[in-house]
Amino acid sequence: MNPIEGMLREGSLKEKTIIVTGGGTGLGKSMARYFLQLGANVVICSRKLDVLEATAKELETETGGKILPIACDVRKTEQIEGVISASIEAFGRVDGLVNNSAGNFISPTEKLSYKAVDVVVDIVLRGSYYFTLALGKYWIDHQIKGTILNISTTYSWTGSGWVVPSAMAKAGVLAMTKSLAFEWAPYGIRLNAIAPGPFPTKGAWDRLFPEELAKKFSFENRIPLKRTGEHQELANLAAYLLSDFSSYMTGEVVTLDGGEVLNGGQFNFLKDVTDEQWAAIAEQIKNTNKPSRNGGE
Amino acid sequence: MNPIEGMLREGSLKEKTIIVTGGGTGLGKSMARYFLQLGANVVICSRKLDVLEATAKELETETGGKILPIACDVRKTEQIEGVISASIEAFGRVDGLVNNSAGNFISPTEKLSYKAVDVVVDIVLRGSYYFTLALGKYWIDHQIKGTILNISTTYSWTGSGWVVPSAMAKAGVLAMTKSLAFEWAPYGIRLNAIAPGPFPTKGAWDRLFPEELAKKFSFENRIPLKRTGEHQELANLAAYLLSDFSSYMTGEVVTLDGGEVLNGGQFNFLKDVTDEQWAAIAEQIKNTNKPSRNGGE
Amino acid sequence: MNPIEGMLREGSLKEKTIIVTGGGTGLGKSMARYFLQLGANVVICSRKLDVLEATAKELETETGGKILPIACDVRKTEQIEGVISASIEAFGRVDGLVNNSAGNFISPTEKLSYKAVDVVVDIVLRGSYYFTLALGKYWIDHQIKGTILNISTTYSWTGSGWVVPSAMAKAGVLAMTKSLAFEWAPYGIRLNAIAPGPFPTKGAWDRLFPEELAKKFSFENRIPLKRTGEHQELANLAAYLLSDFSSYMTGEVVTLDGGEVLNGGQFNFLKDVTDEQWAAIAEQIKNTNKPSRNGGE
Amino acid sequence: MNPIEGMLREGSLKEKTIIVTGGGTGLGKSMARYFLQLGANVVICSRKLDVLEATAKELETETGGKILPIACDVRKTEQIEGVISASIEAFGRVDGLVNNSAGNFISPTEKLSYKAVDVVVDIVLRGSYYFTLALGKYWIDHQIKGTILNISTTYSWTGSGWVVPSAMAKAGVLAMTKSLAFEWAPYGIRLNAIAPGPFPTKGAWDRLFPEELAKKFSFENRIPLKRTGEHQELANLAAYLLSDFSSYMTGEVVTLDGGEVLNGGQFNFLKDVTDEQWAAIAEQIKNTNKPSRNGGE
Repeated sequence: MNPIEGMLREGSLKEKTIIVTGGGTGLGKSMARYFLQLGANVVICSRKLDVLEATAKELETETGGKILPIACDVRKTEQIEGVISASIEAFGRVDGLVNNSAGNFISPTEKLSYKAVDVVVDIVLRGSYYFTLALGKYWIDHQIKGTILNISTTYSWTGSGWVVPSAMAKAGVLAMTKSLAFEWAPYGIRLNAIAPGPFPTKGAWDRLFPEELAKKFSFENRIPLKRTGEHQELANLAAYLLSDFSSYMTGEVVTLDGGEVLNGGQFNFLKDVTDEQWAAIAEQIKNTNKPSRNGGE
Repeated sequence: MNPIEGMLREGSLKEKTIIVTGGGTGLGKSMARYFLQLGANVVICSRKLDVLEATAKELETETGGKILPIACDVRKTEQIEGVISASIEAFGRVDGLVNNSAGNFISPTEKLSYKAVDVVVDIVLRGSYYFTLALGKYWIDHQIKGTILNISTTYSWTGSGWVVPSAMAKAGVLAMTKSLAFEWAPYGIRLNAIAPGPFPTKGAWDRLFPEELAKKFSFENRIPLKRTGEHQELANLAAYLLSDFSSYMTGEVVTLDGGEVLNGGQFNFLKDVTDEQWAAIAEQIKNTNKPSRNGGE
Repeated sequence: MNPIEGMLREGSLKEKTIIVTGGGTGLGKSMARYFLQLGANVVICSRKLDVLEATAKELETETGGKILPIACDVRKTEQIEGVISASIEAFGRVDGLVNNSAGNFISPTEKLSYKAVDVVVDIVLRGSYYFTLALGKYWIDHQIKGTILNISTTYSWTGSGWVVPSAMAKAGVLAMTKSLAFEWAPYGIRLNAIAPGPFPTKGAWDRLFPEELAKKFSFENRIPLKRTGEHQELANLAAYLLSDFSSYMTGEVVTLDGGEVLNGGQFNFLKDVTDEQWAAIAEQIKNTNKPSRNGGE
Repeated sequence: MNPIEGMLREGSLKEKTIIVTGGGTGLGKSMARYFLQLGANVVICSRKLDVLEATAKELETETGGKILPIACDVRKTEQIEGVISASIEAFGRVDGLVNNSAGNFISPTEKLSYKAVDVVVDIVLRGSYYFTLALGKYWIDHQIKGTILNISTTYSWTGSGWVVPSAMAKAGVLAMTKSLAFEWAPYGIRLNAIAPGPFPTKGAWDRLFPEELAKKFSFENRIPLKRTGEHQELANLAAYLLSDFSSYMTGEVVTLDGGEVLNGGQFNFLKDVTDEQWAAIAEQIKNTNKPSRNGGE
């Protein structure tokens, strides 16, 4: 099977209506496409209505599915409530949400203004909890067993320098995922997350790094599996997590990153040791009964 | 879609040969069945050849797939190597391995003999690394991009009393998963794990607990999603992790436990607070500008 | 040695100036007292100047140390900068910061208004990053090897229902701790955190729970070590983390909770099994060579 | 205060008897020295009696404390029981244990024999659980509130290539720490762990790497705080964890590694970006209201 193909059986998301924030471009668009192919109704929202409308048109033509574009700044609760109302009006109800909107600065933290940090935290964290809260209240009131997928990152739990506003906000979203997964489980509401590694997209990555830097820190060097991810691979996982096939999973974050997060292992810098150097080391351990030992063992 | 159905498109494991240790009963058998349905050749091994042979016959009839039962004590490296040789002879090569064999004692740790602890550690940890090592050497030698799925538990990382031998052994297997995922990534070899919650099976759970206890500690009380898992739900996830659809994932452990592991959250004991009690608490927070505060805020 | 006594040798914080937010009451006050006893100059700030001034007077008399109370709403950057300026004016420089201010609602999340969530997130997360950013810029500019201690919680990483605003905010602070620990390490700036379990204080816990509930969910039942923590125990750890004795530690969160976070272990509900029940189970495992096994082993 | 000095007040371990496995050299010896200085009786054991006796003599002269050297292979339960008996005979009882014995191979895993892996797993994992089990039974029988300190590593939970046997074994020990911390808490028995980064010692590190490699992968490059640890810094933390000052802590692993484990953060490779490159990037984020965004935001 080709990993670039859709993996779920036909109709896996039939009769579900799913809202994708930041769904106009990049990974959000790729997820929206696959959800449509699997039979879902999709609502995409972001601040740029023209982008959304072009995407909606393109995906509708491509998939034959039903897609609704709505302008929304996720930092405004009344706009969020408007998206939900419009979605219900268009499709009867809402079953799923992908909190995918994001913003980021790559910068030494001490060079950021207070306001710069606030902007990222507000889009990522505030936007996610506003949308989750609004939809959760609706689901609980209407006894709908909805499901939420949060787009997280591995630095939500490892931390990472130079993306501190995003790290704080994404960590907050992950804590929300685990907390509400427990609290809202009795209502049948599930929350899960994906921590994607590098899935380059014209819409995001290019703007993050100057070209010069992007080359210097090549993915081939940093990703154990030596490549970036394909959008369909992420869409496959996302569709699984929104479908009933994952209905026994909640509060979980699934990492899909080519092994990138494993870089932190204490001796993983040894990946650059050559065969000749290993041969030299092997001399030292020829006798399998004599490992190096602590404490005079 | 019914979560009890298979989720992957037809032929998702076509032309793959997968070994399932402990594949004669329980979850191992359920995984084997689904792999066969998806087109894989399956090898099942355990110490009880009669059980294996009956299972092989049953699954062959049911699925029309090709399945090979072989006796094997995973604590014996020569028997493991025998399984691998026989698999290659039967199917041409081996592509995947599920380290599923396990043993467990539910007991106060201080009541266990040294030997009792050793038995569990040897089956679970030693058995897993022996099989992984044997197969990894074969894959590296033959440039096969194999994949391994380890059946883990959430107590691999949280720890748990009264199952200490298993906790130690499963933790070791998880460390192996993450370590070799990085080290062997350049060879295209992937290792992932699943941490299942309660998926009751006649073959295992019944023997673990006396009936009286099993009733007392009912799953309905302890699992946020209020039910045990269906074998097909685990088989779906397992098949995904062994298929090429997950080929950008390595070193990951996916929890599928109905939210059980979330029980550790500090205030999650509040699940037993009644609506009336919440109403009383609500009085205290009526004014949203006055959260309780630390430090005289 | 009595755990209620101070553990560090005399003068361990001599010549250091440490700011404690929320330092007027509760754990903040206890930490301030011990820092003074160890020779530090201490600045305490919160929104209630009268509380701060009373605390300052009390601790000055008790310890003979130098303590400066300043009013500050940690959500206001200009007030934070005012605290830093006043501290430098009073003591020449600032060496340490304890981000201790907090707010919390114990409530079903769906009953919270957007604004209620915002209030907690703003005090805990925004307040912590504002103060950290302001002080970090000062330290980097003046080449001071400062150190920060963030008061975290175990639900920062486990999540917890019914305290979702606090969980999100504290998770954000923990991500900041790990992220800046790496990024600012070249400047010699360290950040660590403590995740305290229950250290009851008149100032906080009482207001959190109605008496009735507090009794129902007694700590004796929920804390493995069967007691709440003593303030001096937390002060001991905090002083260590702010002192030069921990100068090789950064990016770490130390849990001091009587084992509370361990409750999540899958079989830890077995703590309520009686001796008689264990005896019955023991019958089943009499023969140490026969653990219960998966997969027909 | 100089981090190289002892941090605890005099007599902090008075009247305690502590066994240190692998206590003849390296970090084990450094811990033993400090425990003696704090008033403890110390028992050191390893397989090399001559090394132990020389160390005992040296430390006795240096500290004036009481130290007992005993030969012991931690893979032999009868020898472990012998150490415990001799300790009780010499000092009346045993209060603490440091599981410090270790062995390691730095090697591509596929080049290791089954036996080589077994050797490391047996010393580290089997040795630790044998000793813990033996001592735990004694403590429970005699109602002694003992405490155990396990020397762990960060790769216990991150995993690491090229040290797979050690990673598996150390992960097992960490799981034991958390599991028994909960299970044995009602007896007042505590278990904690330290995950040290590089604390070079003649006894261990030199034998691990050929000189050529050791130079190539310099600590200065890999440790955020740009130095290796001092033995006294680890001894300070170890003494705290064995003393009554930490009596509210159990099941915890404290990392003391100069920030090494933080290397895994997704964007931490940016540490090598120069000021000029950051200036170029800064151009792109001049306007704080325009972070790069996902999804057409």
